[in-house]
Amino acid sequence: MSPITPPLARRLDSLQSSAIRDLLKLTARADIISLAGGLPDAELMPRDRIATAAAAALSDRSRLQYTESPGWGPLREVLAARESAALGRPVLVDEVFVTHGSQQALSLLSEVLLDPGALVVVEDPAYVGALQVFRAAGARIEAVPVDAEGMRVDALRELITRGERPAVVHTVSNFHNPGGVTLSPRRRGELAELADTHGFWIIEDDPYGELWFDQPSPVPVANYSPNVIRLSSVSKILAPTLRVGWMVAPAQVCRAVELLKQGADLCGSALTQQIAADLLTDTDWLTTHIDAVRAAYGIRAKALVGAVRHRFADRVVTTDAAGGMFVWVDFTDGTDTNALLPGALDAGVAYVPGSAFAVTTDYSHSMRLCFTTSHADVLTEAVDRLARAARV
Amino acid sequence: MSPITPPLARRLDSLQSSAIRDLLKLTARADIISLAGGLPDAELMPRDRIATAAAAALSDRSRLQYTESPGWGPLREVLAARESAALGRPVLVDEVFVTHGSQQALSLLSEVLLDPGALVVVEDPAYVGALQVFRAAGARIEAVPVDAEGMRVDALRELITRGERPAVVHTVSNFHNPGGVTLSPRRRGELAELADTHGFWIIEDDPYGELWFDQPSPVPVANYSPNVIRLSSVSKILAPTLRVGWMVAPAQVCRAVELLKQGADLCGSALTQQIAADLLTDTDWLTTHIDAVRAAYGIRAKALVGAVRHRFADRVVTTDAAGGMFVWVDFTDGTDTNALLPGALDAGVAYVPGSAFAVTTDYSHSMRLCFTTSHADVLTEAVDRLARAARV
Repeated sequence: MSPITPPLARRLDSLQSSAIRDLLKLTARADIISLAGGLPDAELMPRDRIATAAAAALSDRSRLQYTESPGWGPLREVLAARESAALGRPVLVDEVFVTHGSQQALSLLSEVLLDPGALVVVEDPAYVGALQVFRAAGARIEAVPVDAEGMRVDALRELITRGERPAVVHTVSNFHNPGGVTLSPRRRGELAELADTHGFWIIEDDPYGELWFDQPSPVPVANYSPNVIRLSSVSKILAPTLRVGWMVAPAQVCRAVELLKQGADLCGSALTQQIAADLLTDTDWLTTHIDAVRAAYGIRAKALVGAVRHRFADRVVTTDAAGGMFVWVDFTDGTDTNALLPGALDAGVAYVPGSAFAVTTDYSHSMRLCFTTSHADVLTEAVDRLARAARV
Repeated sequence: MSPITPPLARRLDSLQSSAIRDLLKLTARADIISLAGGLPDAELMPRDRIATAAAAALSDRSRLQYTESPGWGPLREVLAARESAALGRPVLVDEVFVTHGSQQALSLLSEVLLDPGALVVVEDPAYVGALQVFRAAGARIEAVPVDAEGMRVDALRELITRGERPAVVHTVSNFHNPGGVTLSPRRRGELAELADTHGFWIIEDDPYGELWFDQPSPVPVANYSPNVIRLSSVSKILAPTLRVGWMVAPAQVCRAVELLKQGADLCGSALTQQIAADLLTDTDWLTTHIDAVRAAYGIRAKALVGAVRHRFADRVVTTDAAGGMFVWVDFTDGTDTNALLPGALDAGVAYVPGSAFAVTTDYSHSMRLCFTTSHADVLTEAVDRLARAARV
């Protein structure tokens, strides 16, 4: 029969099912309100505008062909223009590399920047997609906690003082997944200074920066240092189906990534890349569209946070609903969120326990709630159910 | 300034420009007929049918969302049905995994099946996209030559008799790129028997199998052994822009690949995957469409091969024009195809010297010609120019 080679056997070993994952499979049940997801709301995605752009793209046969590995030229140009505005400096097309979602940028960068055993510092709680990539690259992982101002840069400095030499520090700078917090301007400067002094790369993973509710996100970490590789994507502002993410990085990093992209999948889709370019270039429409997404998510986020604070009062500390897709709730009354989950599902509500995102700290009294795909009244009902399950 | 980490430095070292690559950049010049490309003809791609399918796909908002990592369900179902017909056994949906072009299948499989130092046997001349992936995985590469019946399975047997134990044997079974030849039914059986006896995986890389001109391709290698992982794609029969490839593999291999796909890029595009499913399901239309592509390529291939044999006579041996996209020409008169290239470009024709595909043999008297993107009269003119350059 088919040979089980040693690497295949290892891959299969790592597939052991987790209790949390099995429980969360139940969230597809119609009677459960899921705050466990991590998806943008398809109802808010610009379907008609995408359809118009798709038809326009297909009027040119060359859009049916293979495209350049670093991305379709006009898309890189519009991204360079947008990033120039965000970064306050001219970003060259050679510094923009289009990937199949920003997850691919993480994956290719881990091959370009990391030798096995290299140290990568992540935030705790962590974006699990990044953790998975860095672990697969054989990196050694250290975590620094986040607080209300984002990554605890003082804890990173302490690591370095102890003699640790990170190759890469990964941060979700705006509206952290799962932590919900934003890295403060002061800490952005401090983090950049550490990178400049100690010669590590910062990967600024920023898919949520445009989804601010009351005030714009701070200027990117990339404004403070040349040692920052900035990632973003259209998945949260347009649609994940386009699979368009990108990195802004020094041209030599982009050249190294290009070789790997050729081996990984040759190139992206000229069709979806032209759709993305079309929508990003239509700036008046885009502003109106993103404003509408922001407004809808802002209402939902405030409804969720308001309901949590109303029902749970001083039994929890919850992040503010300032942007992005997630709220992080810490129970101060000893509630174990893993233990609570079966009862919550019985009561008809799902969330992701904090332990799913834990690196060093265990976060057994925390949970991540996603507010994007339910309306305000449903979110309020979800919190009522959660309170019943927690006997509050 | 930005740190040059050791892995980045190595990546940049490997970027040294090659003389061939620099010369071939000239082929974009309007006065050059390029037989150097490797692209299907965009003029033959079903633009209108794709546009209809795109509009239909976008009528469902869920197509805007993330999709499952192994591929959009209905696409996997139609692929399972098609592969069941091709393989003469029921192929389960769990045995079909959709990738971002079949290049991604190669890339993910190399991580699943190979430890560093594992032996991979490729064909000589080789598909360079596979070679690149296996080298990046740290595999040890051995090559066995191809002849008019495809891979010299006797040479593979000899390797094994000498004590070599391949983990993977890679073959482009139909209308080889670059070699133009097809693995004969007898050798398919012999190759499968070796895999069964010695416990290695065969990767049957089959993007061209449906592009036969006079008679259908032989039944797949996968019909002869359970140790075969079969790869294909819609790039050559529909359009590369869809970025839809797939593998047919035991369910346990697909499960292992799924973990890696999540890290690599989360998932593919539900939009382009539904377009592919729509077109592959429309069987009457599809048959007519592929027949038209076959007919057009067949005419071009025969014009090219006819012109080469007419102009170069016994100075060359060339493959038959039986299918696929490429013709392989061996000069028997000592012509060095690297040395000939500048003169050929001056005469207004481009090709890829055999050395670009060489693994063990140097193929300095060979060239690959692609016939897909020029009409018959242009191909004849191209061969006239080549003959002038070669002073024939």
